[in-house]
Amino acid sequence: MTKDGVQGAAEETDQAQSKKGLKKQQKEAEKAAKKAEKQAKLAADQQTTDEDDFAKDRYGVSPMVQSSQRLGKQCFLVLRQQQFNVQALVAVGERASKQMVKFAANINKESIVDVEAVVRKVEQKIESCSQQDVELHVERIFVISQAEPRLPLQLEDCVRPEGEGDEDGRATVNQDTRLDNRVIDLRTTTSQAIFRLQSGVCQLFRDTLMNKGFVEIQTPKIISAASEGGANVFTVSYFKTSAYLAQSPQLYKQMCICADFDKVFCVGPVFRAEDSNTHRHLTEFVGLDIELAFNYHYHEVIESITDTMVQIFKGLRDKFQTEIQTVGKQFPSEPFKFLEPTLRLEYQEGVAMLREAGVEMGDEEDLSTPNEKLLGRLVKEKYDTDFYVLDKYPLAVRPFYTMPDPTDNKYSNSYDMFMRGEEILSGAQRIHDAQLLTERAIHHNIDLEKIKAYIDSFRFGAPPHGGGGIGLERVCMLYLGLHNVRQTSMFPRDPKRLTP
Amino acid sequence: MTKDGVQGAAEETDQAQSKKGLKKQQKEAEKAAKKAEKQAKLAADQQTTDEDDFAKDRYGVSPMVQSSQRLGKQCFLVLRQQQFNVQALVAVGERASKQMVKFAANINKESIVDVEAVVRKVEQKIESCSQQDVELHVERIFVISQAEPRLPLQLEDCVRPEGEGDEDGRATVNQDTRLDNRVIDLRTTTSQAIFRLQSGVCQLFRDTLMNKGFVEIQTPKIISAASEGGANVFTVSYFKTSAYLAQSPQLYKQMCICADFDKVFCVGPVFRAEDSNTHRHLTEFVGLDIELAFNYHYHEVIESITDTMVQIFKGLRDKFQTEIQTVGKQFPSEPFKFLEPTLRLEYQEGVAMLREAGVEMGDEEDLSTPNEKLLGRLVKEKYDTDFYVLDKYPLAVRPFYTMPDPTDNKYSNSYDMFMRGEEILSGAQRIHDAQLLTERAIHHNIDLEKIKAYIDSFRFGAPPHGGGGIGLERVCMLYLGLHNVRQTSMFPRDPKRLTP
Repeated sequence: MTKDGVQGAAEETDQAQSKKGLKKQQKEAEKAAKKAEKQAKLAADQQTTDEDDFAKDRYGVSPMVQSSQRLGKQCFLVLRQQQFNVQALVAVGERASKQMVKFAANINKESIVDVEAVVRKVEQKIESCSQQDVELHVERIFVISQAEPRLPLQLEDCVRPEGEGDEDGRATVNQDTRLDNRVIDLRTTTSQAIFRLQSGVCQLFRDTLMNKGFVEIQTPKIISAASEGGANVFTVSYFKTSAYLAQSPQLYKQMCICADFDKVFCVGPVFRAEDSNTHRHLTEFVGLDIELAFNYHYHEVIESITDTMVQIFKGLRDKFQTEIQTVGKQFPSEPFKFLEPTLRLEYQEGVAMLREAGVEMGDEEDLSTPNEKLLGRLVKEKYDTDFYVLDKYPLAVRPFYTMPDPTDNKYSNSYDMFMRGEEILSGAQRIHDAQLLTERAIHHNIDLEKIKAYIDSFRFGAPPHGGGGIGLERVCMLYLGLHNVRQTSMFPRDPKRLTP
Repeated sequence: MTKDGVQGAAEETDQAQSKKGLKKQQKEAEKAAKKAEKQAKLAADQQTTDEDDFAKDRYGVSPMVQSSQRLGKQCFLVLRQQQFNVQALVAVGERASKQMVKFAANINKESIVDVEAVVRKVEQKIESCSQQDVELHVERIFVISQAEPRLPLQLEDCVRPEGEGDEDGRATVNQDTRLDNRVIDLRTTTSQAIFRLQSGVCQLFRDTLMNKGFVEIQTPKIISAASEGGANVFTVSYFKTSAYLAQSPQLYKQMCICADFDKVFCVGPVFRAEDSNTHRHLTEFVGLDIELAFNYHYHEVIESITDTMVQIFKGLRDKFQTEIQTVGKQFPSEPFKFLEPTLRLEYQEGVAMLREAGVEMGDEEDLSTPNEKLLGRLVKEKYDTDFYVLDKYPLAVRPFYTMPDPTDNKYSNSYDMFMRGEEILSGAQRIHDAQLLTERAIHHNIDLEKIKAYIDSFRFGAPPHGGGGIGLERVCMLYLGLHNVRQTSMFPRDPKRLTP
C-alpha cells in the first residue's frame, strides 16, 4: 500500500530544529498522538460508511491496493517522502494487534501517515523502493490525512516511460489529464526531480552572478506602455485607466544600468499574449534576465552570460545527478554536452552550414524553427556541443534598440544562444545613445511619443551595455532533453490553459 | 566636476575576468581608445554648437559645475562609480596639454568617462569623497557618454537630509520629482545603498531557506479565479476571456505542499488593486513567500519563519554596515533591534497592553494601524525589540482558510509579524481538511463553485501546513527606519503612479 509520506521521518531532515524545539515536539507529540488517534478513529468510522456503498466491489481501484500483500498476520506498505520511498511492515506481535494490521492494510493510497518504527536491514534488496537495504518494522501508525479512495490518476501510470506497458494494455496518462490533476502529478519521482532541478537552476544562476558582483533588481510587471511596440501584450484594467503586463524587464534593466548599477539581474515572470500553441511557447514564463555595462566590446557581455550558463551546466552535472537520472528513467536522453569556452559562431557561418546542408535562405533572413534545429544538429556533429552562441544577427530581424554592427550596417551586435538546437536566450548590445536610438525608432515606424521616457533615460550619461533574457522553463526542458515546456512549468499558462 | 563613473576602473572590480580576457581587452582598448577619441571630438563639436545658444549664460546650471576648480593650468574632477567616488586632477604637464585641461573642465556633469591615471597618496584627507587618502593624476581621458548640460535634478539635492540647508535656501527634491526622474535619483549614494541592501535581503532569505531544505517554486501570476474572494483584484484580458492577477501565491504554495514538496518558498510580484494612497501600500510589490508542512504544531512554522527573519537581520547587520550607514546619513534612525528567540505574544496579551495604555477595543476586533504602531512602541519599551510575533488572532478577522484554535473557536492558529510596529508578514496554519474548509467557506459566504479546485487539492492526502507572506519593500523600509515604501521600491506602483 503506497502512502504519501512518513510524517515521523520528516523531522530527521529538518536540520534547523533546535534541541529546545525537539523537547517541545516530544511533549506535543503526545498531544498530537492523542489527536491523531481520534482522527484515525474518525477515518475508520468513515471507512465503515464507505462499506455501505452497494457498488463498492465494482470500482476499478480496490481498497486493497498495489504493493500491499496480506500475508495472514502482516501487511506491507510502501511509504514515500518526496523522491524517496521505503518498505514498511506491520506484523502481529508484541507491538501490533490483528486489528492494527487490518487498520494499516485499509489505509487509502496517498494518505499521509505518522509512523514510529524500527529500521531493519533486509537480506534481499527491495528493488521496488529507493531505500533498498532496509525496511521499517512499524510499532505505531496514525493516519494524519486520509486520501479519498478513488484517485483521479495513478502515480505509476504517470511515471511509465512512453511505449512501455502498451502491450499489457496499461494506462498511460495524457498531458492534459496530468495538468488538470497537477497536485497528484507533481508527486511523481519525475516531477519531484524536475522541479528540484529547476530550483537548482535559479540558485546556480543567482549565485554565479552574485559572485561576479551583480546586483539583483525587482522590476515592475504592470507597465504603462507596451515595451516592444504593442503586439502580443496583455492589457490590465488599472483603476480608471488601463495598463499592460511587461513582456520583458528590458527597459527597467537598462534604466538600472543608466542608474549606475553596472551589472544587474532579475528573476521573474514575463508575459506574452502570443496565440502560439507549440511545445515551447507559454503565455507566462520565468525570465532569467541579465544586463551589464561593458568596457570595450559587447563580447564581454557574451562571455559573462556564457560563463554563467556553463556554471549552471556544471552545477547541475555535479549536484543534480540523482534528479537527472530520475528524469532519465521516464524520459531517456543523451547527457547534455558543452564546451569551455563556449562555441561562438557568426550568423553568416551558420547560414553557410545550412546552405551546405541544402537549405535555401537569404543573407538577411531570420532562422525558422526547423532551421534552428537543423543547425543545432549540424553544430553538434561538427563541434560536439549542445550549447553555442550565434552572433551578429541581421539588423533587420532584431528590435529597434539593437546596436548596428560598426563595420557592416546589414548586421548587428546581437546574438541568440541555443541548447539542443532550440533558442533559450536572445540578447544584444543596446543602443545607449539617445540620438541613434531615435533614428532607429523612426526607421522602425515606432511612435516616439510612446517611448519618450525610454529614450530620455540615455540623455544623462549612459554606459555602453548589453544583456539578454533566458527562459527558465526552456533551459530545464532542453537540459533534461524533454520535449514539452509544460513539463518544466509547474502550473503552465498557454492560450488554452489558465488552470489550475 | 562630478562625472558619472570611471569606466577604466570598472575592470578592477570584475573578478570574473579571465587573463585571456584581459589580454584581449588590452588589444581592444587600443581600438576603443581610437573610437572614443572620435566620439570625444564629436562631443566637443556638439559643445561648440551648444555655444551658439544665445541664452547659454542665462541657465541656472553652469557648464562649469560644482566640485571643479580651474586653477590656471589644472582642474579637479570628482569621478563616481556606484557608491564610491574619488578626486581626479588634470594638470598641464608632460601628459596633458592646456587644451586637454580645458576639455576635461568642460565635460558635462554625469557624463561617463574613460580615464587612465596614476593613483597618488594625498597629504590632506579629501573629505568630500569616499576615497579620502588618494587622488588620480589623469593621463588620458575620453568621454564615453556625454550627459546633456541640464540635469532635471541635482544629485546633491537628492541626498540632502531633510531640513538641512533649508536656511540657505538650498533646493530639496520632493518624492514625485525623484520618482519621475528615477534613473538619476537611483544614482545617489542613498539609493545605491538601499537597493544593494534589498538585493541582500533576497539573497539572505533564499540562502537561509535553501539551507533548511526548502525548494524554490515558481507560481503563475495570471490566474483564472480571484484567490481571496474577488475584491481588490486586477483583471487581465486573456485572449477571448478574462483572467486575474494573483494577489498572492498562496493557493499554489499550498498545492505544492499537497504535492509532496514539504517546504517551499517563492519570491515574486503580487498585485493588489487596492485604492490605498498611504506610505506603506503599493499596488504591486514583491512577496517573499513561505509554506511548509509541519509535524505536530504550527509553532514549528512560526519558528521556521522567525529564524529566517533573524538570519536576515544578522546578515544585514554583519554584511551591509556600509549601506546601513550610508542610508543613515540622509535618513537617521535607531539601529534595528531583535531578540533570539523571537518574542511571541498572544493577541489577547497585545490587547491587554493596549487597554492598559488607554485604548478601548473589543476582544475580537482587529488592530487598527495606529494601534499596531502603539503596540509596537509598548513592546519596544517593555521587551527592547523591534521585531515580534503576534499570535492567535481572532478567527473572525482572518481569511476562511485559517485553522481555528482547537481549544477556543473565537481564536485561530494565525499570526502577524511586526517590524518597528508595522506589519510585514501575515500567516497561519491553513485548513488541510476538505470538509472543514468547505464549512468555513460556507460560513464566509464564499461561492463554493469558484474555489472547487482549491478545496479538491486537499482530498488526496494533505499534510498539516502553514506559512506566510513577507513584503520585501516593507522589510527594507522598516529595517532602515525609512518612512515611505516608495523609497524601497525601484519603480513603485500605486493607484496614481504607473511610470516610469
